Amino acid sequence: MAEPSGATRQLAAFIAETTADQLPAAVWHEGKRSILNFFATAVAGCGQDAIEISLKSLTEFSAADQATVIGRNDRIDALSAAFLNAASSNVFDFDDTHLPTVIHPTAPVASALFALAERQRVGGRDFLLAFALGVEVECRLGIALSPKHYTRGWHITSTCGVFGAAVAAAKVLRLDTRQIISAIGAAATQSAGLVECLGTSAKSISVGNAARNGLWSALLAQGGLHGPAAPLEGTQGYFSAMGENPDWAALTSRLGESWELLQNTYKPYPCGIVVHPVIDAILSLRTTVVPDAIERIIVRGNPLLSQRTDRPHVTTGREAQVSTQHSVAVALLSGQAGLQEYTDACVQDERVRSLRSKVVLEQDSTIPVDSVIVRIFTSDGREHGTTIDHARGSVQRPMSDPDLEKKLRELAGPVLGDRKLRDLIDAIWSLDKRDDASEVVRFAVPE
Amino acid sequence: MAEPSGATRQLAAFIAETTADQLPAAVWHEGKRSILNFFATAVAGCGQDAIEISLKSLTEFSAADQATVIGRNDRIDALSAAFLNAASSNVFDFDDTHLPTVIHPTAPVASALFALAERQRVGGRDFLLAFALGVEVECRLGIALSPKHYTRGWHITSTCGVFGAAVAAAKVLRLDTRQIISAIGAAATQSAGLVECLGTSAKSISVGNAARNGLWSALLAQGGLHGPAAPLEGTQGYFSAMGENPDWAALTSRLGESWELLQNTYKPYPCGIVVHPVIDAILSLRTTVVPDAIERIIVRGNPLLSQRTDRPHVTTGREAQVSTQHSVAVALLSGQAGLQEYTDACVQDERVRSLRSKVVLEQDSTIPVDSVIVRIFTSDGREHGTTIDHARGSVQRPMSDPDLEKKLRELAGPVLGDRKLRDLIDAIWSLDKRDDASEVVRFAVPE
Repeated sequence: MAEPSGATRQLAAFIAETTADQLPAAVWHEGKRSILNFFATAVAGCGQDAIEISLKSLTEFSAADQATVIGRNDRIDALSAAFLNAASSNVFDFDDTHLPTVIHPTAPVASALFALAERQRVGGRDFLLAFALGVEVECRLGIALSPKHYTRGWHITSTCGVFGAAVAAAKVLRLDTRQIISAIGAAATQSAGLVECLGTSAKSISVGNAARNGLWSALLAQGGLHGPAAPLEGTQGYFSAMGENPDWAALTSRLGESWELLQNTYKPYPCGIVVHPVIDAILSLRTTVVPDAIERIIVRGNPLLSQRTDRPHVTTGREAQVSTQHSVAVALLSGQAGLQEYTDACVQDERVRSLRSKVVLEQDSTIPVDSVIVRIFTSDGREHGTTIDHARGSVQRPMSDPDLEKKLRELAGPVLGDRKLRDLIDAIWSLDKRDDASEVVRFAVPE
Repeated sequence: MAEPSGATRQLAAFIAETTADQLPAAVWHEGKRSILNFFATAVAGCGQDAIEISLKSLTEFSAADQATVIGRNDRIDALSAAFLNAASSNVFDFDDTHLPTVIHPTAPVASALFALAERQRVGGRDFLLAFALGVEVECRLGIALSPKHYTRGWHITSTCGVFGAAVAAAKVLRLDTRQIISAIGAAATQSAGLVECLGTSAKSISVGNAARNGLWSALLAQGGLHGPAAPLEGTQGYFSAMGENPDWAALTSRLGESWELLQNTYKPYPCGIVVHPVIDAILSLRTTVVPDAIERIIVRGNPLLSQRTDRPHVTTGREAQVSTQHSVAVALLSGQAGLQEYTDACVQDERVRSLRSKVVLEQDSTIPVDSVIVRIFTSDGREHGTTIDHARGSVQRPMSDPDLEKKLRELAGPVLGDRKLRDLIDAIWSLDKRDDASEVVRFAVPE
């Protein structure tokens, strides 16, 4: 493991020095798409148990009325708003995905930035620049740590998200390189979150903390808090504790030339991204098979698919979101995979339960993460098979701008109402021309 | 690595079921000693930069006037009070030490409990029972993870402290076993803190978070948040992510029969505990040598001493606290090692700087952590040596109750004044007879 000196310093200087005119047009646009998708899933998720329980608890300790809780009429302090909005956006795992790392990049970064934008005026261009930089650092850290970091049990959206939130907030706060190093140190010593919590409401804690603690790291650094000179690469620093032979070069190579935001993807289905090609395959096969005739379904995919989603026995909708077996069953039975297919009630359905037990996962490391081979064996002795090369919503088959607007309408429309929905969509697409980025988040509450 | 099923469940049931009458008298008393020492160092530390900066930032987001900030007239919300008091108590590394793990056990646990006791009435016996249970879980986790967890870069006081705070708060909240498992899960997914931050003000973040997030974990579990069934031993759980071949048996063997609180120790010197035998050695040798005549000082100790404190070049008082070289220099020159020997000014002193450069550390794994062999070579060709078997303040040479009272008087007296100091001391020694544990912390503010 070659340890380059000053990786933290290089990242911090990049954050401090990059200007809006260095951002390619495609990055600007992808930032808006990410934010549009963020609001869709945040509004959809904001009534879930994890959010209700956290909100109720935080309210007791919080200064009121500083910032918007997306999708609700509650207002709360800025740190808690960052927590809650990140948690809401991610609670269904329906938010965006940076496929090389399976990080959900926007939840921590955008939540921190919107909370900050309600605290002090942040221009739309500054917001989008800070957002792109936050996603960049978050995803590069994820690439450097992947795949062993996640395999070991780290919830990478949380553990890397706190850095993204910290540097994005630091950029808006106009911190200098030295201060940004301290913000990165403060983030590093708060980086946490376990994969074991997926499928339970405790998952939301680390995602919310990534936004909250990232934002707080930048504020502390602004306030004069000092961290170590090399929080990432120091001998007892972040990479020692949480890395397994990390790829140091990934942190800084071609910094400012390539943009991870351009690798971002958006989900058509509210479940683990690795399950998406499976659902595509089932939806394409279901016209040819009758569910009752099915004896066995073999899903052959990248080992990541088994590692993260081999869950034949699920008891809650939340668990079902990371279950290939459940996703196969509902897609076969209902011909779709929307939020209603991942409710507790749907999980208990007898026909779903029966079909889940017929699904077998096979690992094949030659199959890419967004591909899958599915074979269905029926009682008449026939085999029905298909191969998905790229899932719908992948970089190769991206959701279009209208697809994303449709997702926002479907998920947020019932809560926000038509007028606010229209205002929200307009505000996002014109974010780079707005003087005050907080206008966007203020539209994302019920009429 | 044998993975016993249900380690988390066993711990949770132990917390739920243990009653005050099962606690040996020695544990009650050691609890009071720990709390006395806690107030000494919290009052001493409460004006440090890390505390000032955190307090100022948290105040902006906080509901006012819920809980005491020890040593100050500020009041703040309960979660932030837990953060600040833990950070204050630990900021000088002058708080207690569980030597088998080098955890500072009281800061996270007592800070969470005092914040809770100002939120709802907590009887003194319930407080002390919860405190002992919190320390038990925190230290057993540390034993199970040691020594590789720390070596890898984890600040063990923070990473294990969050569990201690969580289960202690859970006990006071009378959570049942299932809820305590969720609290442990919520703590696990917030466990964080890097050794790399030692010597900087960022160190205080993870220690404060351990108290704050531990308390919050219990409140979330009380509020209905669910975590995984096996957050510690699950395949992608805490021990997978943060352990290196952990000693599972240490978690649960002789639970309720042995008490880690009885292994707690208190520091006579405000620096890393592993440096203490070195200071004892220097103080015993200094009458025989003239500093100017010294050519070389060889400090031979357990490898832990080098790993944590081999810092010849220090620039701040805080760094100096984890520097054997600095501690040797000041003890030789001043004949003592108090807070004034670990100021920034003292670090810059030319004579101190010169002496630091003459100190060489040697590693010897046959030497216990609380022992050391020191040899001083002088320009006349002579060698002056001594061996310390057990440091002052160790389990074998403990600080007496009057020693601890003296430490509290010296550190807290100037801030609290005589009357409150006397009230505070009385309140701690009679804590088990008090109806309201929060009386104690309310005495710990300036007149």
